[in-house]
Amino acid sequence: MSFDKLVSEQVFKHKPYQPGKQPKFSTKTIKLNTNENPYPPSPLVKENLFNQVNQLHLYPESSSKDLRVCIANLHKVDPDQVIIGNGSDDILNLCVRSFSDSSKKVGFFDPSYSLYEVLCSVQGCPTNKISFQNSSFDIDINLITKSGCNLFFVTSPHAPSGRSYENILFSDILKKYKGVFVIDEAYADFAPQNAVNLIKEFDNLIITRTLSKSYSLAGLRVGYGISSKKIISILNRVREVYNIDRLAQHIAKIALADQEYFSQNTNSIINSRENFYEELQKWGWHTYKSGANFLFTRPIGKDGQFGKSTAQDLHSFLQNEEVFIRYFPYHPLTEAYVRISVGKEKEMDMLLKKLIKWQSKDPQK
Amino acid sequence: MSFDKLVSEQVFKHKPYQPGKQPKFSTKTIKLNTNENPYPPSPLVKENLFNQVNQLHLYPESSSKDLRVCIANLHKVDPDQVIIGNGSDDILNLCVRSFSDSSKKVGFFDPSYSLYEVLCSVQGCPTNKISFQNSSFDIDINLITKSGCNLFFVTSPHAPSGRSYENILFSDILKKYKGVFVIDEAYADFAPQNAVNLIKEFDNLIITRTLSKSYSLAGLRVGYGISSKKIISILNRVREVYNIDRLAQHIAKIALADQEYFSQNTNSIINSRENFYEELQKWGWHTYKSGANFLFTRPIGKDGQFGKSTAQDLHSFLQNEEVFIRYFPYHPLTEAYVRISVGKEKEMDMLLKKLIKWQSKDPQK
Repeated sequence: MSFDKLVSEQVFKHKPYQPGKQPKFSTKTIKLNTNENPYPPSPLVKENLFNQVNQLHLYPESSSKDLRVCIANLHKVDPDQVIIGNGSDDILNLCVRSFSDSSKKVGFFDPSYSLYEVLCSVQGCPTNKISFQNSSFDIDINLITKSGCNLFFVTSPHAPSGRSYENILFSDILKKYKGVFVIDEAYADFAPQNAVNLIKEFDNLIITRTLSKSYSLAGLRVGYGISSKKIISILNRVREVYNIDRLAQHIAKIALADQEYFSQNTNSIINSRENFYEELQKWGWHTYKSGANFLFTRPIGKDGQFGKSTAQDLHSFLQNEEVFIRYFPYHPLTEAYVRISVGKEKEMDMLLKKLIKWQSKDPQK
Repeated sequence: MSFDKLVSEQVFKHKPYQPGKQPKFSTKTIKLNTNENPYPPSPLVKENLFNQVNQLHLYPESSSKDLRVCIANLHKVDPDQVIIGNGSDDILNLCVRSFSDSSKKVGFFDPSYSLYEVLCSVQGCPTNKISFQNSSFDIDINLITKSGCNLFFVTSPHAPSGRSYENILFSDILKKYKGVFVIDEAYADFAPQNAVNLIKEFDNLIITRTLSKSYSLAGLRVGYGISSKKIISILNRVREVYNIDRLAQHIAKIALADQEYFSQNTNSIINSRENFYEELQKWGWHTYKSGANFLFTRPIGKDGQFGKSTAQDLHSFLQNEEVFIRYFPYHPLTEAYVRISVGKEKEMDMLLKKLIKWQSKDPQK
């Protein structure tokens, strides 16, 4: 039987999201391609885990109440201004499902997190994909306020460049923009500032966060959204009632409570990032100042050239060496660059050695 | 700011799913309202859990490959005929998102699992909600085959009655029905038969299962779908890429592998169910033969009466006694009944004592 006619119109046309490669590990593998944290989560996570397992036959608390209280305390908002997702991807999806339909348009910049477009495609809503006008990834306010979009996503710090945006920019946007505005702050814990304070001022603002990066919990799938109570109550209408399992709620609470480990962990990564940034500056590779746990850099080959084929060559060279980084060939602003997640100091040293090896080999034949 | 105009048309009209009450526990509480398993999961679940925690900073395997292999072996299908969901609710949602749109209709019976309608409401697709014609919850094949529905859900064993359907019925339906047909087998492990064998014969059949009930993992949120490779590949287009976290994949595998514990656990529940059924028969309460981990029964009060007010009275009486069962007042076929999840023998004995206490009190004032 062919199922083409049974598939919904939007899914029939839909292009699924392509996650970064998850390689088979060997002892030599260095994995710097999906912005994971190189350190394990807080050692406190293991405590009391056994008691939780004995409760697994019972449904989880459906609104993740205790976890919302932790997050509310951390950001000094009300627990009803917080919603928990199965990863922040879940929250981004709830935004699309709640605030778009066949006549309500969604906007985002290109390049940025490719999932926004994927979620819109499944929803079957019109989109406004706005190309960045220059290689600084500057945001022109008018492109948002005059977009006619009902919902707009901005990634800050931006991915894949890592560039941060100032709150004054968001404040200027929100004074004019009357749709729902999402700032995707997946990487904000590695940045010098974030936009959480703007929540008090603008009730159409949603900030999304994840515990995948700064809390070393990519394997657990916990993210959250902060907004006005009204917006959160709308997102909750669409949320799957038991979206966060018992162990995830429990572990997320413990990880958030251990702010000492969190600071130590994020500081280590920020230090490694800055050291590696300095190194790449010495090499003369154009590299963006990063507020995230990755660096976006333009490799220069032995022949002194940079560009698409050089970046491609480095990417495949490293893959053969079992060093995984990310390459985005499909946009003029990204095709000459590679994105390197910040690993442990030791991993970054190994990577440097591999880069020296690459530079000393003959240019791609 | 009012957000009414920003909310998508379907979400604006949407009525969210109401889960069963999750009470605050005291030592006296008996919770028989949400069909949880009264026993904890396999003791093997705890083993190696610590190693998994150390890997939590890394993303999970996106397609839950190893877990799919376990399930494929269990049901003697190919791993590419299996998809894993964050609970079987996730799979039901993928069905709606993949096989319905504004012109593709979804069908289901009333009463049955109320989530089908909720999922359709968020999707904004037309529905065909077919009332059962009689109190045996018989299914008239023509109501499905002539429904014009693109997607159809049947719950088997049926909820809330617990009644099972024979494979010959499904086979007769599938010979004629050319839409996508979902048999929601959340409770099938407690039933004398299931429809998995029909997967070989009909490539438009999807069977959904959950580990929440028979594997004592309601708190973990793992379910799955089995179908033809083609259908599974369509559902995967819509699935969130990292929908199942590392711990959930790990624990689900261990629980599935421990078939000895599984058999012992399900047999205990089936025994308790049959004992309690016999008891209710003695009392003269009309009770459906159940293939699930619950019983649907029509209470008779001290005055010898049954009906809506008697069922309501029992439900609130038990709630005051901290015994939680489920009551569905909104349908003529359910309003005189209550649904009791099967607990431990000890819990069922306590419940019996409470029922005796209720019957000996004056009828509702």
